[in-house]
Amino acid sequence: MRLVTQTAEMRAAVGETKKQGKSIGLVPTMGYLHEGHLSLIRFARQFADCVITTIFVNPKQFGPAEDFGRYPRDFERDKALAESAGTDILFAPEVGEMYPEGYLTFVEVEKISDILEGKFRKAHFRGVATVVAKLFNITRPDSAVFGQKDAQQAAVIRQMVKDLNYGIKIVLCPTLREPDGLAMSSRNVYLAAEERKESTALWRSLLFARDLVRNGERHSSKIVAGMEKTIRESPHAVIDYISVACADSLEEIPAIKTGDEVLISLAVRIGSTRLIDNILITV
Amino acid sequence: MRLVTQTAEMRAAVGETKKQGKSIGLVPTMGYLHEGHLSLIRFARQFADCVITTIFVNPKQFGPAEDFGRYPRDFERDKALAESAGTDILFAPEVGEMYPEGYLTFVEVEKISDILEGKFRKAHFRGVATVVAKLFNITRPDSAVFGQKDAQQAAVIRQMVKDLNYGIKIVLCPTLREPDGLAMSSRNVYLAAEERKESTALWRSLLFARDLVRNGERHSSKIVAGMEKTIRESPHAVIDYISVACADSLEEIPAIKTGDEVLISLAVRIGSTRLIDNILITV
Repeated sequence: MRLVTQTAEMRAAVGETKKQGKSIGLVPTMGYLHEGHLSLIRFARQFADCVITTIFVNPKQFGPAEDFGRYPRDFERDKALAESAGTDILFAPEVGEMYPEGYLTFVEVEKISDILEGKFRKAHFRGVATVVAKLFNITRPDSAVFGQKDAQQAAVIRQMVKDLNYGIKIVLCPTLREPDGLAMSSRNVYLAAEERKESTALWRSLLFARDLVRNGERHSSKIVAGMEKTIRESPHAVIDYISVACADSLEEIPAIKTGDEVLISLAVRIGSTRLIDNILITV
Repeated sequence: MRLVTQTAEMRAAVGETKKQGKSIGLVPTMGYLHEGHLSLIRFARQFADCVITTIFVNPKQFGPAEDFGRYPRDFERDKALAESAGTDILFAPEVGEMYPEGYLTFVEVEKISDILEGKFRKAHFRGVATVVAKLFNITRPDSAVFGQKDAQQAAVIRQMVKDLNYGIKIVLCPTLREPDGLAMSSRNVYLAAEERKESTALWRSLLFARDLVRNGERHSSKIVAGMEKTIRESPHAVIDYISVACADSLEEIPAIKTGDEVLISLAVRIGSTRLIDNILITV
């Protein structure tokens, strides 16, 4: 595995790779890698000749009151894990390399950036779209792999790729979970022991919703009410939102129809840790 | 010369060109080609193996009260001119091909998009940056050629290329002028005979400014006052702005210092036609 920290060197490495006629698969991450990330790298490994994993904690996608400063980092461990999962080139630039003095340009995907997560995290998806556009331009991949856990992020990036004619295939990988169902996330390390126990409420509520739908429930308000009840059993859990939406547009739907692909998603704060999760249901 | 109207076909043609190891030079235009455009194509012809000229009247860079609907168009003539100047591939997509139903993504270059032209044409440079980002992604050029007449547009695009890591060389070509000094522009056809005579006021005022600076004037307010006086001699001319700015940042400067590269630019309405022009002065 080759480690690259400079944009110019990364661009040159991509040029060489392209000259050899090799396809490039990109796996953008913020590091502190867990099995979920590794599954993305392993997936890319299966179809791309050259897998580029990026590690960059992107300040532009954190709000001023958010956890950019304390976001967990362990570069030496990440390096070993990225290599073991099959990374060919690890691109890990510094903040100043990605956003030098006088940086001014942002990519905005309207509408889908403003709902759900976007309502609670202003400018979050603007930061995401911008850094992904930059990484696309630096690494010029044929395909890029993202996790289903960040479903809205994937929707924003898919829209950007389509609108800005990137011609890059966006591949989604299923969410990996701890044995008790908690979705893997670098932020899970924030959870104190009691909070960690309560954090299973997200997945339990999603399974509850899935069972409701399987048993014939079609009204979103009933599904949301059932999920709220499940989560309220955890005394430290505070719901930011629960959404029943069209999986494509992320527009919320009052009632599910047969044939719909539905994304049920939620954000819940457990103490000071904010967790998200979702489930895709084809009805 | 090959004519392409579909994005997918354009992308495939670019893929073939790249496979042959050829460099690509892009000349983005809104059509109704004049000698200024042709000089850009001829310039690209000198350093690129494959010259892609695009003709697309981009609705996203026109305000609601602006001239999108009546912007002059003559595709058959453009086709012949583009070919004669050395275009290899002419890309001329329809609006629906570039902005299909449900289009949501925009590129914004902050600060330099909001001054000068941006003050009078809200969202203009957002439309420019967006369409150029799209054209860059579709045609993946090594270099792109723009005219010095649209100096602020060039500054916005240079900033975008740097910030979003496009790795594309931006080449500027000097403004071509009619024998009486009027900068060539597709919009000059709007001018009635009397307005056409008065339109030389822009260039005369810029030459006047240059002479003032050559004669030692260093105060921007004096230079602007002199230019205003020159332009007021034309009864139908209304000044939108006159700016003495740093050529790089486009930030206005109260006084010129030795060694400065200064951009003096202006926008003037003659009747219902809005004209822009500028001059670069190294002091």
